[in-house]
Amino acid sequence: MSQNPLVIFTPSGKRGRFPVGTPVLTAARQLGVDLDSVCGGRGICSKCQVTPSVGEYPKHGVTVSADALSEWNAVEQRYKDKRGLIDGRRLGCQATVQADVVIDVPPESQVHRQVVRKRAEARDIVLNAAVRLYYVEVEEPDMHKPSGDLERLKSALQKQWGLEKISIDPALLRTLQPTLRKGNWTLTVAAHKTHQSDTVEITRIWPGYFDGPIYGLAVDLGSTTIAAHLCDLKTGEVVASSGIMNPQIRFGEDLMSRVSYAMMNKGGDLEMTRAVRDGMRALFDQIAKEGEIDKDLILDATFVCNPVMHHLFLGIDPYELGQAPFALALNTSLSLKASDLDLGLHQGARVYVLPCIAGHVGADAAAVALSESPNTSEDLVLLVDVGTNAEIILGNKDRVLACSSPTGPAFEGAQISSGQRAAPGAIERVEIDPVTKEPRFRVIGSDLWSDEDGFDRAIATTGITGICGSGIIEVLAEMRLAGLLDASGLIGSAEQTGSARCIPDGRTHSYLLWDGSADGGPVITVTNPDVRAIQMAKAALYSGARLLMDKLEVETVDRIVLAGAFGAHISAKHAMVLGMIPDCPLDKVTSAGNAAGTGARIALLNIDARADIEKTVGEIEKIETAVEPRFQEHFVNASAMPNAVEPFPILKTVVDLPEVSFNTGGEGGGNRRRRRRG
Amino acid sequence: MSQNPLVIFTPSGKRGRFPVGTPVLTAARQLGVDLDSVCGGRGICSKCQVTPSVGEYPKHGVTVSADALSEWNAVEQRYKDKRGLIDGRRLGCQATVQADVVIDVPPESQVHRQVVRKRAEARDIVLNAAVRLYYVEVEEPDMHKPSGDLERLKSALQKQWGLEKISIDPALLRTLQPTLRKGNWTLTVAAHKTHQSDTVEITRIWPGYFDGPIYGLAVDLGSTTIAAHLCDLKTGEVVASSGIMNPQIRFGEDLMSRVSYAMMNKGGDLEMTRAVRDGMRALFDQIAKEGEIDKDLILDATFVCNPVMHHLFLGIDPYELGQAPFALALNTSLSLKASDLDLGLHQGARVYVLPCIAGHVGADAAAVALSESPNTSEDLVLLVDVGTNAEIILGNKDRVLACSSPTGPAFEGAQISSGQRAAPGAIERVEIDPVTKEPRFRVIGSDLWSDEDGFDRAIATTGITGICGSGIIEVLAEMRLAGLLDASGLIGSAEQTGSARCIPDGRTHSYLLWDGSADGGPVITVTNPDVRAIQMAKAALYSGARLLMDKLEVETVDRIVLAGAFGAHISAKHAMVLGMIPDCPLDKVTSAGNAAGTGARIALLNIDARADIEKTVGEIEKIETAVEPRFQEHFVNASAMPNAVEPFPILKTVVDLPEVSFNTGGEGGGNRRRRRRG
Repeated sequence: MSQNPLVIFTPSGKRGRFPVGTPVLTAARQLGVDLDSVCGGRGICSKCQVTPSVGEYPKHGVTVSADALSEWNAVEQRYKDKRGLIDGRRLGCQATVQADVVIDVPPESQVHRQVVRKRAEARDIVLNAAVRLYYVEVEEPDMHKPSGDLERLKSALQKQWGLEKISIDPALLRTLQPTLRKGNWTLTVAAHKTHQSDTVEITRIWPGYFDGPIYGLAVDLGSTTIAAHLCDLKTGEVVASSGIMNPQIRFGEDLMSRVSYAMMNKGGDLEMTRAVRDGMRALFDQIAKEGEIDKDLILDATFVCNPVMHHLFLGIDPYELGQAPFALALNTSLSLKASDLDLGLHQGARVYVLPCIAGHVGADAAAVALSESPNTSEDLVLLVDVGTNAEIILGNKDRVLACSSPTGPAFEGAQISSGQRAAPGAIERVEIDPVTKEPRFRVIGSDLWSDEDGFDRAIATTGITGICGSGIIEVLAEMRLAGLLDASGLIGSAEQTGSARCIPDGRTHSYLLWDGSADGGPVITVTNPDVRAIQMAKAALYSGARLLMDKLEVETVDRIVLAGAFGAHISAKHAMVLGMIPDCPLDKVTSAGNAAGTGARIALLNIDARADIEKTVGEIEKIETAVEPRFQEHFVNASAMPNAVEPFPILKTVVDLPEVSFNTGGEGGGNRRRRRRG
Repeated sequence: MSQNPLVIFTPSGKRGRFPVGTPVLTAARQLGVDLDSVCGGRGICSKCQVTPSVGEYPKHGVTVSADALSEWNAVEQRYKDKRGLIDGRRLGCQATVQADVVIDVPPESQVHRQVVRKRAEARDIVLNAAVRLYYVEVEEPDMHKPSGDLERLKSALQKQWGLEKISIDPALLRTLQPTLRKGNWTLTVAAHKTHQSDTVEITRIWPGYFDGPIYGLAVDLGSTTIAAHLCDLKTGEVVASSGIMNPQIRFGEDLMSRVSYAMMNKGGDLEMTRAVRDGMRALFDQIAKEGEIDKDLILDATFVCNPVMHHLFLGIDPYELGQAPFALALNTSLSLKASDLDLGLHQGARVYVLPCIAGHVGADAAAVALSESPNTSEDLVLLVDVGTNAEIILGNKDRVLACSSPTGPAFEGAQISSGQRAAPGAIERVEIDPVTKEPRFRVIGSDLWSDEDGFDRAIATTGITGICGSGIIEVLAEMRLAGLLDASGLIGSAEQTGSARCIPDGRTHSYLLWDGSADGGPVITVTNPDVRAIQMAKAALYSGARLLMDKLEVETVDRIVLAGAFGAHISAKHAMVLGMIPDCPLDKVTSAGNAAGTGARIALLNIDARADIEKTVGEIEKIETAVEPRFQEHFVNASAMPNAVEPFPILKTVVDLPEVSFNTGGEGGGNRRRRRRG
């Protein structure tokens, strides 16, 4: 038996020689191996579980004997008897090294474990939360060495955990003495560190060893909805996800109407601040209930939002955001107490608000950038977060640009004659037979198409109530593909199209998608004003993207990522037929889901990510679309479907775009091609 | 004319050569000369006024011509016309160097000017307040460079004032945008720096240039009274001083009865916390009114108090201070927001609570140490702060010790048969003729002795109501000197003393000081229980001091400083006759007045003093009297007046101490000397 056996840790591969009798935890710490411990090696917390391997390891050049670690001692045996240990596991703080050994640290024993994300292209999150628990044994007071309980606690945290600069939430001063005595001079401390300072702050204390989990909230505060993930800060897992409507909706559907409300009504901004915080408190109550947790164990929260929501949430009048030069009160990140924002969380809860990128490009866009990392991408990626305002980011590892574009609420079903929010009963998918011009569709709440057996039964409860955002994109694109709608946005007449579904509607025509009137249901048509609304919205979106491409002097992008709930539901093909997004191989258009929410979650689980995104935001070039002369030109061109000047060659290899024109007035055009009734 | 004229500043003597045309303020800054400026050299604030000298300066080796500084420019002339300038003064930011020059910086143009204290032996205070005002011009927002208003403000403070790490009170985020616009992109910032961090915090903002003063409070929170000084933070002057009774008195007169109240009544500590904070708010309203200032301009406050008051003020249950080992919740200093303590001050006001020394030796003692600097004293100084609890500090530049001693309230007139607080009508000075044994006295409210003409008229309003603390010390000492009271504390009978004023009182005797019964007034006597109460109190005080002398292995001290209101009123000779304080030349016994309050004021006006006292407190050796075996021995010896074993040789060169004994019972003694009736 070697005097100084070799200890090899997997999966890190870190290795070193230690005297016989060295605890595994000590060896791990000296080698910088990521092995967790809350109790500081006292055999209480069991976070330092390891699995010693036995046998030959030619790769490492060692043979491990069965007695490479010490016999079970009383502490370890007692833990196993009382709480149980997985077969083969040992407590790293109790088992000591006796001979050469290979020791595996399972993922759940790592502090900085990886939180695996579902999407292959997204980077994994390495856990490094702002709040960590530390168990400490504090020296008892001694009349002859008069130092306060707090000072002895700090000194214990320094000696036992290497924490240097320590502050304490003043609210804890009152409970410190009884807590220390209740825990018989031991306690567990929640310490909050930030990436901005080298001081850790004690934000909560428990007598003795506190075994429970602690939680954090990642909140995506949107104009329409507030969504939150409740995460376990020790495992990174999402315990519950929940959302509510933003109660500010009663002050205005879109951002600018809320800014107007604040301008026109004295104290209106404060009313809206109260409303959103009230909503936040209700959401947190709800998510704690859904996650079946004690809300007081929520000790950290991250927030992403657009600039107007950002200001209203922080209690700042958004007045300046309603007019040029769109000056933000602040654009950098903010670290606060939850109580500063009246969030109804535990006194020890802290809040981090991500930085904004510019007056129209908010912390939500920053969160998308954090989640999707365009700044590390080899290929040129276009990120589009579609909402009432679209945030657009274009770039790669060399350079990243961002802008926002005022798409308006049409994509959310507003301003559309039969439009509605995405809810059961709404038409979400549409196909139109290019020959017969007959539609079929699916509604939210059923997987059946309208021409399939059982459809009527399946939708009996919800009925067919309207068209949601993704449905309107699809029906327009299908109309365009079926030759019912021309590139300029005119719907043809029954005569021009050969479809009786094209019915006169004032001076234009509408397409009859569904007639439910026989059963007292709605008549759902697509009108020419509906087409105009979508044209305006998609032209705004495209022009923003095109402007960024101009700035980078590129004609194409390598891939497109659609973020947001809307982005998750629209079909890439249909969006491209309308010219919402630039020409691109369809398999290179992916959805990132709620990337802003994911960015909030990353910032919650890893404080280094906070430093990262602050740096990235500083490096992103901001383009203000409102003052770019080319924006207007792009906008006019982008009003056509897909576009008046861009050729969309890749799209044209996939679909056939009929070159129809239904403009019966004066100049040019006329129908250059017409399909016959099938 | 030299290309690079020589510029010499007085009184600093700093000198350097600068190109012709250099503004005086620029030269001063480059040389590190302390020349104030709030507006940053824009000719607005006039803080940089200097006086150029003309003529020969052989000492400096220069001759200064009349045109050594530039002609008056338009800005300077406009300032002079509008606001006026003292003859010979120039604005340092406008006047430029043209030739060799000697420039005097008057005290009011120095940032770190000295605040002169009245006592010669006390060190002056160099002004270096935590809060300073900075005038800044902020860049206007630019759509193409989207940074928030806050970030542009920070950048202006960095560029124009060299402030590096800047944070802002979150409450100001709401007012930042309108303030900047109201001031047309200029504003004045109150920035709070601490000695504990390199970050300055913006705590208040004003549009444009704010010319007004800002204030701070130095608060001495005592068991009986709360006293505060309102100070101008730009000049260091005391604008108003005020005090109120501590509203906690209704929960108990002394500290231990308040600790008991907290122990016996659930929530009792919180009741007392509320009471003291209520009192504080009332005091601050009152002092702002007395100083005729806007209370919202108070932006800083320092607090000193004993440990029990410290805990109750901070909202900490003082339970642990009521029993060994007298563990403080915390002993280090505390920097907080005033709003954390519910003090009714402006949101931007910050609070600094001085560190405590030990469980019985509080921040008030630390403040005395800061004011009197025993740690820099060449000679050995004994500091005694007499109150319900006496804080005792002994030391010099080599070593400082501290303890506290439970004197009880006898020195404040409590537990004394005719005792009362120091108020008009109370007897405060007493003389007894050693031959006739007849007394004469003075009462608070009149300068006349009781045997002088006009005394009756002078006291007609107040009457003669009782004896205050200093009066009881004097009457006892005078009785001792007149042979009416023996060393053991017995009052002689009329027969033993030859004075008819010594009247039987149960099994002992009393001395009749004043009989007002003819006019319906009180009969004021000194009883033997009165003597016992003072004996206990003074023995406790002396034993504490003696214990510290033991620890330092000294038999004498070089000087004695009496702090506190009581210390300011007692006569050194009489205190020494009773043996309250060690033997010492009488001219070496001085009063420091409210040294604790002065310490609070020093910490308010100079943040370096905060670092100093924290360091000093860490170095002071704390002695716990309760567990020192010799304390009891000293106490027994010190019960005698002046002392059973200490010889008091210096005192005996000044006074004649009759060696009488009135013990008529058994062992030893008997009257060794008896005076006849006069």
